[in-house]
Amino acid sequence: MRLEGVVVPLITPFLEDYSIDKEGLKWLVSYLSENGVNGIFVNSSVGEFASLTIDEMKLVAKIVLDSRKSDSTLIFAGASTNFTEETIKLAKDFKDMGVDAIVVMAPYFFKVREKELLNHFSMIAEKVDLPIIIYNIPLFTGIDIPISVYKTLVSQHSNIIGTKVTLDSLIFFKRLISEVREIRKDFSILTGFDEYLLPLLYMGGNGGVMGLANAIPKLHSRVYESWKNGNLSDANKYWIDVLNLTDIYDYCNSYTASIKLLLKVLNMPIKNVVRPPLTICEEESKIRERIKDLSLFLTNSK
Amino acid sequence: MRLEGVVVPLITPFLEDYSIDKEGLKWLVSYLSENGVNGIFVNSSVGEFASLTIDEMKLVAKIVLDSRKSDSTLIFAGASTNFTEETIKLAKDFKDMGVDAIVVMAPYFFKVREKELLNHFSMIAEKVDLPIIIYNIPLFTGIDIPISVYKTLVSQHSNIIGTKVTLDSLIFFKRLISEVREIRKDFSILTGFDEYLLPLLYMGGNGGVMGLANAIPKLHSRVYESWKNGNLSDANKYWIDVLNLTDIYDYCNSYTASIKLLLKVLNMPIKNVVRPPLTICEEESKIRERIKDLSLFLTNSK
Amino acid sequence: MRLEGVVVPLITPFLEDYSIDKEGLKWLVSYLSENGVNGIFVNSSVGEFASLTIDEMKLVAKIVLDSRKSDSTLIFAGASTNFTEETIKLAKDFKDMGVDAIVVMAPYFFKVREKELLNHFSMIAEKVDLPIIIYNIPLFTGIDIPISVYKTLVSQHSNIIGTKVTLDSLIFFKRLISEVREIRKDFSILTGFDEYLLPLLYMGGNGGVMGLANAIPKLHSRVYESWKNGNLSDANKYWIDVLNLTDIYDYCNSYTASIKLLLKVLNMPIKNVVRPPLTICEEESKIRERIKDLSLFLTNSK
Amino acid sequence: MRLEGVVVPLITPFLEDYSIDKEGLKWLVSYLSENGVNGIFVNSSVGEFASLTIDEMKLVAKIVLDSRKSDSTLIFAGASTNFTEETIKLAKDFKDMGVDAIVVMAPYFFKVREKELLNHFSMIAEKVDLPIIIYNIPLFTGIDIPISVYKTLVSQHSNIIGTKVTLDSLIFFKRLISEVREIRKDFSILTGFDEYLLPLLYMGGNGGVMGLANAIPKLHSRVYESWKNGNLSDANKYWIDVLNLTDIYDYCNSYTASIKLLLKVLNMPIKNVVRPPLTICEEESKIRERIKDLSLFLTNSK
Repeated sequence: MRLEGVVVPLITPFLEDYSIDKEGLKWLVSYLSENGVNGIFVNSSVGEFASLTIDEMKLVAKIVLDSRKSDSTLIFAGASTNFTEETIKLAKDFKDMGVDAIVVMAPYFFKVREKELLNHFSMIAEKVDLPIIIYNIPLFTGIDIPISVYKTLVSQHSNIIGTKVTLDSLIFFKRLISEVREIRKDFSILTGFDEYLLPLLYMGGNGGVMGLANAIPKLHSRVYESWKNGNLSDANKYWIDVLNLTDIYDYCNSYTASIKLLLKVLNMPIKNVVRPPLTICEEESKIRERIKDLSLFLTNSK
Repeated sequence: MRLEGVVVPLITPFLEDYSIDKEGLKWLVSYLSENGVNGIFVNSSVGEFASLTIDEMKLVAKIVLDSRKSDSTLIFAGASTNFTEETIKLAKDFKDMGVDAIVVMAPYFFKVREKELLNHFSMIAEKVDLPIIIYNIPLFTGIDIPISVYKTLVSQHSNIIGTKVTLDSLIFFKRLISEVREIRKDFSILTGFDEYLLPLLYMGGNGGVMGLANAIPKLHSRVYESWKNGNLSDANKYWIDVLNLTDIYDYCNSYTASIKLLLKVLNMPIKNVVRPPLTICEEESKIRERIKDLSLFLTNSK
Repeated sequence: MRLEGVVVPLITPFLEDYSIDKEGLKWLVSYLSENGVNGIFVNSSVGEFASLTIDEMKLVAKIVLDSRKSDSTLIFAGASTNFTEETIKLAKDFKDMGVDAIVVMAPYFFKVREKELLNHFSMIAEKVDLPIIIYNIPLFTGIDIPISVYKTLVSQHSNIIGTKVTLDSLIFFKRLISEVREIRKDFSILTGFDEYLLPLLYMGGNGGVMGLANAIPKLHSRVYESWKNGNLSDANKYWIDVLNLTDIYDYCNSYTASIKLLLKVLNMPIKNVVRPPLTICEEESKIRERIKDLSLFLTNSK
Repeated sequence: MRLEGVVVPLITPFLEDYSIDKEGLKWLVSYLSENGVNGIFVNSSVGEFASLTIDEMKLVAKIVLDSRKSDSTLIFAGASTNFTEETIKLAKDFKDMGVDAIVVMAPYFFKVREKELLNHFSMIAEKVDLPIIIYNIPLFTGIDIPISVYKTLVSQHSNIIGTKVTLDSLIFFKRLISEVREIRKDFSILTGFDEYLLPLLYMGGNGGVMGLANAIPKLHSRVYESWKNGNLSDANKYWIDVLNLTDIYDYCNSYTASIKLLLKVLNMPIKNVVRPPLTICEEESKIRERIKDLSLFLTNSK
């Protein structure tokens, strides 16, 4: 299994009564799978995992596993909780269900120190017989996983195979690549911000787990494939399109709200519903204005 | 019901296998109840609520309700989750169990804006027929509840009766008292830091919800009672003892670990066990050294 | 020389053309001196030292030294620059002029590390034969002087006699007192925030260097004297008056602007002029409203 | 005058007694000028402007103007102070001396609000008849110039021609380009971090003002020229060399110390002396190790 390319942090569709929209979910997985994304990450931040019960997290993973069109679409399941043992239990259930890897962030309530952080990830890596992806997202967890922690973990746990880093810092990526790759050449480094996809690939990273790929996966794939084929001028051109599109994140109060409204504007069969405390975004006309030049990618939907 | 005086954010005792230590829990509630604390707050931060399942949060509340020696020991139940509907559901269960109030913090994963924050607390206040205490603890939630949000909430929801503020800022307390009391004279303001108990009372606050009161409730009560009786010189003296004791928070990696080790050093029947990701503290000799002058209060244990 | 009690961080009066208002300055020093403040700190933050040239900093000190009514009003001169050698040179000039002590903050452009911080203060302490006061004001310098740096400095330099700490943290003061006093019992600890005067005295601190004392020095002195005489109930009462008055800091864009407008509202012969980039405050009616209950102290002006 | 390409934030050479090393300065300017850099920025952060007197800032500018080999090497003079009028006065002196533009940062002592920030830059732009470059460096000033301030300034002052942004945020650059270019197509946007040179060019930026260009200007120029000629694969390759070289910033306590030690390691006639509070770096062997693969660019020195 290679962790690389374009991975989608799947939004979780809801019906008007806030229950999980199973049909919407199935549709979205098919759509993404048919549009060639390399992986789908369920129970992500934009997937509102923090507003799902443990049972719902498993339900979402089950539906997604059943709906993918091809085994080449890898399924990664978020198993983050604040509580090490609960994450281990959940991860084991995901293993039984057949996910390809689990994704784990730092505990996000207590702002633990390095010792506790190492302890958390090490216990999970030891007890869960699956590839593990470290999810570093300080803006929500309040914890910036230090590079020293990465170094210890990757040298001790071969099943820690990669990381998703949602951090707006080119310099952090430079350091991470420089220091962690000395220890483990095969360690995958992906961005969680759409904006970083191409610069990270240029620096030696492996891809991205990017919210807008829920809506327009072909655009992100075009960046990735152009880069892979050495067509840098095209890669740059499509990346600028991605950059322009990320403006929509600034129109709404949350990433999830931006993406769900974009899906609605694109007439996809996903409702513009988020679970409280999040609120929906109503800047439909701004989004419509922003995407009007991207017709190429928008007409290719299923 | 008056929210005032010395409230204990109850630690949750665990056995060596990390299961809940029911006997330890009962003992601790009796001990605190007999030592005259005004209230007990279960599922608090130092109670490691983030490392409890929803079922365990209810179990702890049940045991505590059953173990208190007197109805004058109020029981407040923490019902914080990241997910508004889940908090409402949990709070309703607590109501059925007979707790005196629920305690709710800001959602702590998404760093929501003012609109979402208002939405979260308003929905809960509308749907839960119990007194509600706002728990403001930015060091863990990453959200500093603005005074403007307090003002809107207290003017719209009469069942929002008070707040626990765990913020190291005298100036914030000054502003909160000055601005919120103009709207609601009866709104209770308590500190979550032992250090602030007396200054806050002097400023017009109502008490504190303080971790060290798990171990030495009489000391905190002595501060409070001395102040109440106008014996300021005694109040100051006992407060200095509290201040000195708070040094033990600096010896360990978490508040919980400090308190649990203190209980052990004091030979109370509570095990020095915390759930991962937290780790136990081993600075026993430092704590022993620190408390040696506080014998008066330490010998009064049950 | 004892560093204690009520010290005034002197605002620097300007004429409409932004030149130094020498007459205003003389008047203010006489007023403060006659109203019994323990010390005057020239070239402070609220004194806009960052908007004065080196020559102006010396001029202000000269006028203040010449205008004090009694040697019991100590004169402390701010000698902070970003550049260690320049601070030393300036401090030597202040010594020749006869100031009682110099006040030095961390360099405030480069965000230096502990090694550089120690180096800075040590070089100054070695080369300047005067009592030195460390000015810790992270909100402007961006550097929080760690307690470990204090400990090293006070153990190595007997002429470092005290500190002004402008930090809204009761817990920092607790730690500072607890750790530094073990090494030097006579080390003076003063707050730079009006709000902290009384709590700090209760904790073992020595007083404050407080902006509002420019306008109403008797109120601050009343807090201090009441505390000193063991009249805690009065001390608390006057401190509440100070707290209420600090609301005016929230009306304006800078401490200096608040104080200068307050002086104007009180009809003192100081113009409401600040040097750019600061801008004057125009919330005159709010200030007038806020002070209307403090008439006792306001009528005592010269 | 076009603000673009590779600009060098000139370090200020000192002799062992901390006086300005005029010969070293002349040598460095000749070296850079002959190696084709597009501009030299004197009195920059790495130039330790905060440790220079106003007279020294002028002296450095004078020597640099006199030493450049060609008018095509533009000279930009840093005129940042905390004090608007002093900056205006200094900028006028620079104009008389013949610099091509002045560079101004936010006032860095007071953490002023938007109103004061606008006031500061507007007064300078109105009174100084020279092109003005806004220097945005929050890590030292503590003020993140908001995009709204940029928008107001560029729409009102045609002599504000560009900005140097030393901020580790790809997303900020995306927003700045997207929003400011709508108002002024010709507004130049340069990075202050070596790491961002190429990604910024790809995004529509214009170049960089980068510390390592003091030592190895040809490497940065190679990135820039390759990009300009559409040779993206070469541009990427040389940029990776720059990225690797930026590791040396992590070895030392300040950017300046890293660069001065690098110059020494490269046997350039510049002494490894910084003014206190900065301290010199002694990690010579680490730097030697780091640069050993860059021989191509290192042998091209004068």
